[in-house]
Amino acid sequence: MEPLDLIHQPASDPLAENEPCSALGHHCGVAGLFSPDPLNVPERLFYMLFSLQHRGQESCGVAWEEDGRHRGYKDLGMVAPVLGRFLREERRSRLGIGHVRYSTAGGGGLQNAQPIVVDCNKGRLALAHNGNLSNGGRLRKELTAAGSIFQGTADSELVLHLISRSREGTREDFLREALAPLEGAYSLVLMHEGALVAIRDPSGFRPLYVGEKGGATYVASETCALHAVGPMPFREIAPGEVLIVDRAGSRSFFLEPRLPRRACVFELIYFARPDSEVFGESVHGARVRLGEMLAELDEAAGLRADVVVPVPDSGNIAAIGYARRAGLPFDFGLARSHYAGRSFIMPTKDQRELAARLKLHAVPEVVAGKRVVMIDDSLVRGTTSRIIVGLLREAGAKEVHLRLAAPELKWPCYYGIDIPSRDELISNRLDAAGIAREVGADSARFLPVDRLLSGLGHSQGYCSACFDGNHPFRPDVGEKEGQ
Amino acid sequence: MEPLDLIHQPASDPLAENEPCSALGHHCGVAGLFSPDPLNVPERLFYMLFSLQHRGQESCGVAWEEDGRHRGYKDLGMVAPVLGRFLREERRSRLGIGHVRYSTAGGGGLQNAQPIVVDCNKGRLALAHNGNLSNGGRLRKELTAAGSIFQGTADSELVLHLISRSREGTREDFLREALAPLEGAYSLVLMHEGALVAIRDPSGFRPLYVGEKGGATYVASETCALHAVGPMPFREIAPGEVLIVDRAGSRSFFLEPRLPRRACVFELIYFARPDSEVFGESVHGARVRLGEMLAELDEAAGLRADVVVPVPDSGNIAAIGYARRAGLPFDFGLARSHYAGRSFIMPTKDQRELAARLKLHAVPEVVAGKRVVMIDDSLVRGTTSRIIVGLLREAGAKEVHLRLAAPELKWPCYYGIDIPSRDELISNRLDAAGIAREVGADSARFLPVDRLLSGLGHSQGYCSACFDGNHPFRPDVGEKEGQ
Amino acid sequence: MEPLDLIHQPASDPLAENEPCSALGHHCGVAGLFSPDPLNVPERLFYMLFSLQHRGQESCGVAWEEDGRHRGYKDLGMVAPVLGRFLREERRSRLGIGHVRYSTAGGGGLQNAQPIVVDCNKGRLALAHNGNLSNGGRLRKELTAAGSIFQGTADSELVLHLISRSREGTREDFLREALAPLEGAYSLVLMHEGALVAIRDPSGFRPLYVGEKGGATYVASETCALHAVGPMPFREIAPGEVLIVDRAGSRSFFLEPRLPRRACVFELIYFARPDSEVFGESVHGARVRLGEMLAELDEAAGLRADVVVPVPDSGNIAAIGYARRAGLPFDFGLARSHYAGRSFIMPTKDQRELAARLKLHAVPEVVAGKRVVMIDDSLVRGTTSRIIVGLLREAGAKEVHLRLAAPELKWPCYYGIDIPSRDELISNRLDAAGIAREVGADSARFLPVDRLLSGLGHSQGYCSACFDGNHPFRPDVGEKEGQ
Amino acid sequence: MEPLDLIHQPASDPLAENEPCSALGHHCGVAGLFSPDPLNVPERLFYMLFSLQHRGQESCGVAWEEDGRHRGYKDLGMVAPVLGRFLREERRSRLGIGHVRYSTAGGGGLQNAQPIVVDCNKGRLALAHNGNLSNGGRLRKELTAAGSIFQGTADSELVLHLISRSREGTREDFLREALAPLEGAYSLVLMHEGALVAIRDPSGFRPLYVGEKGGATYVASETCALHAVGPMPFREIAPGEVLIVDRAGSRSFFLEPRLPRRACVFELIYFARPDSEVFGESVHGARVRLGEMLAELDEAAGLRADVVVPVPDSGNIAAIGYARRAGLPFDFGLARSHYAGRSFIMPTKDQRELAARLKLHAVPEVVAGKRVVMIDDSLVRGTTSRIIVGLLREAGAKEVHLRLAAPELKWPCYYGIDIPSRDELISNRLDAAGIAREVGADSARFLPVDRLLSGLGHSQGYCSACFDGNHPFRPDVGEKEGQ
Repeated sequence: MEPLDLIHQPASDPLAENEPCSALGHHCGVAGLFSPDPLNVPERLFYMLFSLQHRGQESCGVAWEEDGRHRGYKDLGMVAPVLGRFLREERRSRLGIGHVRYSTAGGGGLQNAQPIVVDCNKGRLALAHNGNLSNGGRLRKELTAAGSIFQGTADSELVLHLISRSREGTREDFLREALAPLEGAYSLVLMHEGALVAIRDPSGFRPLYVGEKGGATYVASETCALHAVGPMPFREIAPGEVLIVDRAGSRSFFLEPRLPRRACVFELIYFARPDSEVFGESVHGARVRLGEMLAELDEAAGLRADVVVPVPDSGNIAAIGYARRAGLPFDFGLARSHYAGRSFIMPTKDQRELAARLKLHAVPEVVAGKRVVMIDDSLVRGTTSRIIVGLLREAGAKEVHLRLAAPELKWPCYYGIDIPSRDELISNRLDAAGIAREVGADSARFLPVDRLLSGLGHSQGYCSACFDGNHPFRPDVGEKEGQ
Repeated sequence: MEPLDLIHQPASDPLAENEPCSALGHHCGVAGLFSPDPLNVPERLFYMLFSLQHRGQESCGVAWEEDGRHRGYKDLGMVAPVLGRFLREERRSRLGIGHVRYSTAGGGGLQNAQPIVVDCNKGRLALAHNGNLSNGGRLRKELTAAGSIFQGTADSELVLHLISRSREGTREDFLREALAPLEGAYSLVLMHEGALVAIRDPSGFRPLYVGEKGGATYVASETCALHAVGPMPFREIAPGEVLIVDRAGSRSFFLEPRLPRRACVFELIYFARPDSEVFGESVHGARVRLGEMLAELDEAAGLRADVVVPVPDSGNIAAIGYARRAGLPFDFGLARSHYAGRSFIMPTKDQRELAARLKLHAVPEVVAGKRVVMIDDSLVRGTTSRIIVGLLREAGAKEVHLRLAAPELKWPCYYGIDIPSRDELISNRLDAAGIAREVGADSARFLPVDRLLSGLGHSQGYCSACFDGNHPFRPDVGEKEGQ
Repeated sequence: MEPLDLIHQPASDPLAENEPCSALGHHCGVAGLFSPDPLNVPERLFYMLFSLQHRGQESCGVAWEEDGRHRGYKDLGMVAPVLGRFLREERRSRLGIGHVRYSTAGGGGLQNAQPIVVDCNKGRLALAHNGNLSNGGRLRKELTAAGSIFQGTADSELVLHLISRSREGTREDFLREALAPLEGAYSLVLMHEGALVAIRDPSGFRPLYVGEKGGATYVASETCALHAVGPMPFREIAPGEVLIVDRAGSRSFFLEPRLPRRACVFELIYFARPDSEVFGESVHGARVRLGEMLAELDEAAGLRADVVVPVPDSGNIAAIGYARRAGLPFDFGLARSHYAGRSFIMPTKDQRELAARLKLHAVPEVVAGKRVVMIDDSLVRGTTSRIIVGLLREAGAKEVHLRLAAPELKWPCYYGIDIPSRDELISNRLDAAGIAREVGADSARFLPVDRLLSGLGHSQGYCSACFDGNHPFRPDVGEKEGQ
Repeated sequence: MEPLDLIHQPASDPLAENEPCSALGHHCGVAGLFSPDPLNVPERLFYMLFSLQHRGQESCGVAWEEDGRHRGYKDLGMVAPVLGRFLREERRSRLGIGHVRYSTAGGGGLQNAQPIVVDCNKGRLALAHNGNLSNGGRLRKELTAAGSIFQGTADSELVLHLISRSREGTREDFLREALAPLEGAYSLVLMHEGALVAIRDPSGFRPLYVGEKGGATYVASETCALHAVGPMPFREIAPGEVLIVDRAGSRSFFLEPRLPRRACVFELIYFARPDSEVFGESVHGARVRLGEMLAELDEAAGLRADVVVPVPDSGNIAAIGYARRAGLPFDFGLARSHYAGRSFIMPTKDQRELAARLKLHAVPEVVAGKRVVMIDDSLVRGTTSRIIVGLLREAGAKEVHLRLAAPELKWPCYYGIDIPSRDELISNRLDAAGIAREVGADSARFLPVDRLLSGLGHSQGYCSACFDGNHPFRPDVGEKEGQ
């Protein structure tokens, strides 16, 4: 059976927004809150989702309880235009959840936007999901055979069908039954009959945090979304933990089996926001350490340079670490336009060259006559790097050394990150020397996987499958669909 | 369990469009086509749905088969802005269906827009529905108890769940099983694994027609949608008929039990487009006869008048019949602005008075010093009539006699028409004399139900429940939801 | 010196609106008001301009006095979307003017939108203009030579420069001096230092009316715009009259020389709204008479027919007159879609054929087997008529006789009406018999010019140059620009 | 005579865009090009204006020669949405100019958008202007008295009237005559009868550069706009220079009197883009030096700190200079959201607090337990600084020392910069110690004016009137209107 492909034209062109420069697809973000005293819940969710916008720009939505009913609103587009209305409406509620969604070009569309709000025999349910199930295809086939109907193409509907099909009566029992067959990544936030439920898969692929402020409980993918509401104490929701919050208070149970932690290392390298904590680590701190490790390798290799220039803003923090460890000046040799997010259609190849100049500029004052170490967070296809190196040379750089604060990206991810096909990944075609030649740099260097893992806080517990192909779960044949 | 209420802001404000003057809600319209030779199916559906726009302005959508997959597109808004893109895209396909949807103010939203496109164990399915199930609430409860999940509030999802839950293997068998429990109105168009399926409920509440042109088969709620593609021979799909068209050709079977026909008389009075045939009748011809009947009643009562003036455009055709039978001049004593569809927010009562003047104008040349017979198709709340009578008087009319080419509207409809609550219907508060007083007319007259039914082609086979309360099916308690 | 061509993309696509079917360009409309007691002037202007929308759909605007300053707002687009904001804003003012503008495809643009609001040595001035100056080109050259700057291409800037360059000190003197050199059509409304000034050219080409209600004075191109504010006594502003209204009251003076009246007969045939009075005539009444005259000609010629069908809505009223005089039934054999104003891009010829079906439908019930007299107001290129005749034949009409309630259109207009080039006008290529053949009708007939003029109230005082080439003023070489 | 105030609702809300954080109004930017071989001139202007977007976000426009005519397009809004169409249209031209405009809240509107395209006795003229004339009010009064009409409120129309009124015959002569009476700032770009004319006022207040590439000549406010077309040799257009480029080549003449240079020092501190050169200085380099000077002052004062944190992005470069000179680590202790440009309406004070958190985040990893030097470019009202200091303290900063890489802002600018009224400027209310108290910092320090001027390349030739009140030209009474 072929996947559906419901297409939909967004109300506001999602391309017409600020975009980070990188070619790697973000996945999704989730948020939720429960307050014993009624609050303007959709407004609070707006603030949280706005702070998670970097995790998904295709669609967003909120669902909340109001006057004993579930209400919801979602659309293609970014948080500010789609959900901005909730800053101007006063709605009293105790409970709500929200979602921002990234999607691959082909599989997007409004039918996959979340939260999904349904009626079923367990009552009123709403769900928001970050992650991807590696056995989603098989489960979908089984459920369909048993009479379930799927309106979208995303894994998240699966969870609702499994809950609805469970014969168990209590919330803990039917959740245990429904979640047992799932393999892969799922950080879930649910509304169910007056309760907020937050679930993190036993491998802990994706982050999930909980905090408290003024008697209310807030759940979000990253701590930056908690800060958006205000300063509050927080903790990581543990791998396999199911946290339930309602008027009776808050309690947790744990899913079996308790698997080894497999936190996605790419969250630290690239996805998460620098002011967040994920997996118990400061994202900023981790990125500084990645830059330091790179500098140590270059020092050992005897590289001589004059200035460290980050690719803004993705390479900023690693460049701080590199410059500090190498004892070299850090400087803004590349400037990003404040207005370049506003995209425009570029029909010809010529125009694409010109467009690149509009987004990024080299600063002659910083790089002319210098040996430049140019730092970025990771390398996907290498096309942008080639243009940037060209800008630096045009502005007079004497040497350009490309440094990536991550290992070579070579493998697909089955747990929620949208990585281009193996053919497109430059590191599957070329080694570092070949890459340097292709992008026009004097040299190129990556961070080896073992160095990356040992350099982070724990040497264990990370999934680095996209770098080393060591996948914790193998998908069913033909599976790959990002959440 | 409370109904969900997923709200959604439309891409284009549906209010900012042409609106017919009446206060009665239209319901929905469906269309479909199968062609053995590939055509630009979405483009053809555009023409058909555009011609059915009067049946629903809230949302619209199409689904079609392309490269062996089901594709779809739907949004809140009118056909031209939402589906206009398909006039500019070349898509080759053999099969497609479409829908225009009207919805009550509260129950609208994108989650109820159609076609619904799903994957299930019967394969790829897409459905568009016109009508309303009077036992929808009970069926929904039963299906939910058995594990089905509902994402929207409309009846149409029910049909898909019943199909998916059937254990029958052949298309005819599972359709028979799935449709058997349905009570009420359903004109359905489905795509199923390469076949177009058109279904009309055994009571035949809503119209459904099929035509052929150039080897292709076209299905639509009204014949005007067939004409939009070009002149073609057509026939009514019979009550209880299930028509299947695919590469093997076209064949029908019939649902049991064969109930007496209950065609909605309001389709002839108000809903259908005058150039359409529905229920085997010319809509224009039926409306002329309604006007003639009114004139006969007035003649018997000895009314003396000078000119017959329709409320444009809803009273136009009945006024032709009235003037012809009464031997009085027909004239355009009221003119409608060509630009008044574009609505504007009117916050104050003062402005509402002024706004009425923008939409409709009385022509002194026609009515000054005259005894005016003012014809409209039906009377709901009476508020607009009061304003129009005032305009005529202000332009110098000596007498104004309000004539309605329909009986008194008094009861709810459970089969797909959105009628205001009984309290709001003026005919539940006042008799004709009282209505004349309230709207400022010298007299008022309705067409009696028995006269209406005997005056139409068949004296039997019409549902006139909204006038006489004689409902063929009673709903479950609390049921009322329009399609 | 080539004309400028400043292009501008409208905020709202003016094509995406209701459009009358005809191919003749409307010109412009003006409105103004003065009230000794402050009113919400922009709101009142909204109502007046909305009622003048048929006179111009390209752009619209208002200017008013507020707190001793001139304020203004204008944009490309229709009255409701562009000026709708003024229904929601409370602004107190004594004085304001407004404008709706039609423009030819090439010469449009926001730089020509009105009112024009300026500072000059006569103080604060704002102007709105309906008409066209036949000596505009020469005056522009003279003014430019003397140092004047033109930002737009329309004649209206001329009037402001002439006012500014006058050495006369009093308002009456500088207006007399500034207006003296003008030839052609100008109905002007000005705000000048607290006064409303309404001016009609000595030939009286374009209509201009004044009315009083509640102490306030309202000026507008047609009486329908006065009715939009409420019932009020009104009178025609005379050819050559300059009416000044301010806190000191209202007084008039007259421009010299007093030329013979040359009222545009096309206002009665086509432009003005049927519920208006223009040139002292009821527009509805005049159109009924045109239809009667046509019927008399056909009677004399012995035409036999079964039904009179108007092309909606342009032929509606003449068809009433024709049917009445001919003793034939009037019926709606053609129906216009209520939703077809919403235009869509039609790239291929095939689609254009299909699009015509979306806008207009023939009703078989009315025309099948009948000899049809099809009435329209005028014939320009003949392309639409060919399609409509085809629709009638397809619906079964036995004969189709095309009747036009106007003479053959053959000449350009230099006074504000946008008529296609002589080559495009079908009556310059073919006689009535040839036209009947080209559009597929059994016969065609126009109203002769002398019959038209003698049949109207006065046999004198109309400009019929577009029919007979008898132009009151000849333009400078190369002049033609509509207002 | 009161100034006009034509209001206009922009097609796209200019607020719904990325905004730099500062409260100081940018002014305008100009661009132009002449090429002997036809190019897609509007496309090239798009690239140049996009790179000047930081100089004005209210409106933008282009004008160009095409087929011997002047064509133009302008609207309220940003370059990408308003002018993006020119990336998709192929237009061949030799000559064009463009403009981006900033405007104060009150005086904006489409009637002031540029280029202004006119017909006059010198032929076809189009003009774009950056700057402000300090004697604009007096000149306007004189010209009005002489019969000139003003449609907008900006100074730029003045220049066109002066050109039109000149009796001189040659371009050089009438330009000399027209420009002679102007006082204040004007960098002008004109199209005149096939020639590109670039003019910089004798004081050289605003920058203006010219470059050549592929035979074509490009003119722009900053060199970054030249780079946007590609690398090319360039030079500063000298104060008082009038550069003319046409098919005969390029030549210059100079305006009298030759005044001392008064280059606006705020261009270096804040307005110009860091990768630009203006006034012969690298903007990046100048800002690094400003930071170094601050560090020297702090060193002399014995300040002890742990980390240097810029307010992103306005303080970035000065912070590099400070950290380098002070020997302290530079780090990103404040992060800016990539999505916060998209603004939203914040009706309540509570929400304003929350909104600030959405735009800027403090990074605990960087600042917790640290003595932080927080660097920004300048201080206007101080409200944002108070919030930022609060975020740093909340994230654990032990001390916060506010450092501004500019002197105290105290005076108005009459030459094109929009500075809030003197009352609003915090430095007119408080000294550094008072400011530190008000924003919650441990200390505050500005750069003294003499240090600023001596520290820049030349110690002479800058206008620093906004800091020291030493205005080169005094305006006429009541004058202040930004370009």
